[in-house]
Amino acid sequence: MSDRPLIRHLVIIGTGLIGGSLALALRRAGAVGRVTGVGRSLPNLELARARHIIDDLSRDAGEAVGDADMIVLAVPVGAYGQVLEGMAGSMRADAVLTDVGSTKQSAIDAVARSGLNASRFVPGHPIAGTESSGAAAAFAELFERRHCILTPTPETDTDALARVEAMWRLTGAHVLRMTAAEHDRIMAAVSHLPHLAAFALVNAVREAGRGQATDPFDYAAGGFRDFTRIASSSPEMWRDIALMNREPLLRELDRYRQCLDALGEAIEREDGEALLRAFAAAKQARDAWLKEHGGEA
Amino acid sequence: MSDRPLIRHLVIIGTGLIGGSLALALRRAGAVGRVTGVGRSLPNLELARARHIIDDLSRDAGEAVGDADMIVLAVPVGAYGQVLEGMAGSMRADAVLTDVGSTKQSAIDAVARSGLNASRFVPGHPIAGTESSGAAAAFAELFERRHCILTPTPETDTDALARVEAMWRLTGAHVLRMTAAEHDRIMAAVSHLPHLAAFALVNAVREAGRGQATDPFDYAAGGFRDFTRIASSSPEMWRDIALMNREPLLRELDRYRQCLDALGEAIEREDGEALLRAFAAAKQARDAWLKEHGGEA
Repeated sequence: MSDRPLIRHLVIIGTGLIGGSLALALRRAGAVGRVTGVGRSLPNLELARARHIIDDLSRDAGEAVGDADMIVLAVPVGAYGQVLEGMAGSMRADAVLTDVGSTKQSAIDAVARSGLNASRFVPGHPIAGTESSGAAAAFAELFERRHCILTPTPETDTDALARVEAMWRLTGAHVLRMTAAEHDRIMAAVSHLPHLAAFALVNAVREAGRGQATDPFDYAAGGFRDFTRIASSSPEMWRDIALMNREPLLRELDRYRQCLDALGEAIEREDGEALLRAFAAAKQARDAWLKEHGGEA
Repeated sequence: MSDRPLIRHLVIIGTGLIGGSLALALRRAGAVGRVTGVGRSLPNLELARARHIIDDLSRDAGEAVGDADMIVLAVPVGAYGQVLEGMAGSMRADAVLTDVGSTKQSAIDAVARSGLNASRFVPGHPIAGTESSGAAAAFAELFERRHCILTPTPETDTDALARVEAMWRLTGAHVLRMTAAEHDRIMAAVSHLPHLAAFALVNAVREAGRGQATDPFDYAAGGFRDFTRIASSSPEMWRDIALMNREPLLRELDRYRQCLDALGEAIEREDGEALLRAFAAAKQARDAWLKEHGGEA
């Protein structure tokens, strides 16, 4: 580490779990001078300051970013348009803008529409999170050994990309690059679709109980709890993600419906062989994934 | 407790997690004299005997049940036909037969087809289990504070029903009665459908990765792990359950597909309001369930 930190003045727009944890990880690495937090909720910003996540706070992104050399957008993907609009004309020419949102083509489009210099924007997505949120939940270790995907475009400046990569490496994340299209397709399959599936499952059980004497929820057990954990996620956040990753998600949803249809047809024609093949293939893939990626079952 | 135990000679057909745990719970309660275990796997039976789950072992159900006053069928629901056939003509007239299977109309039908005296059969289903299986996983506390559903028919003898109820109460289970149809409908919604949904989800992700440079599984995280845990369940067991509870499960699968279709249509027409309503309703129902039924999130 040289005497000069990697980042002189970091502005985190949205000091929640991800934004706050990034600031803590960079502080721990000695990689940041001053940190300004921007947000809508004053109590959350004050908590972030009390926890030494940020040094200064602001409720105005345009004002806050004027001196920054690194700006991290960590607000819900549905709020990008409004936040970026407020920053137009305020960013220094040599500043780097990056984000942590779950959908990447939508982020690129939002920056393009904002009038900001797209060459200074490095789209990013750390694959990390917990069920908790807000500055209260932030911790420096959140990104250790997690993937952080960057999706630069042909326009992205090489030095901006290098600075964002260096920043994420310092958090302990495994940084890799792919196109926004590939990112959005993969996340549609392994993250966005499971959320839709879980929300729909809980709603199907609600429907099943309608007008019945017995509430089916009374008989739900551990499998149901695990399966539907992600249905307790933020409805607003997932509405935004579903809309922002609309086409890839619709394609994965179609694929899922085809898999469900295949099971339904096998049950319909009492085809035990086909059911066994489908269930065994799923079990094998899931067990192999678990073995490779560790963690508890 | 009188000097005479509730059950003089218990025969457990299938000394796995459920059958073995029931024997252990009844022994702990001092409610059983002798326990015979019946199964196909000799090593599992020998382990059950070494763990004092059973006193004697047999690989022939017909032979084993001759002296029993309580017989518990704890084999996969797909194996009922064969096992019951082997018991025809062997049961004492005053013996009680019960089962622990996940589908109840199929159990009633299997007993009717077997030629056994249906009035002595009390269909049952303790809602308990873990991801482990076999006699090695059995423990006396498995049923404590869990529901155990009995689904007697108009034919079921009152005294047989009372004995099975008393048996399950001694394990610490909360015993309740409903019709087989109601049981099968509820379990289709809260247990069987979630398993189908999880198997299908893993298969959809497999399909998504086919012919692609990047394996989507490499980017799956905690939500995916939770959501798909039940896809690591036994393919054979779930094939049996899907076939044995065919019609209720097809109805719930249809309901699920309608809920998914509704989400797909809302995404298609970019209807954020409808998505938010659907996600919020699911979150509210799931959070309420969690609050009422406890356990971790």
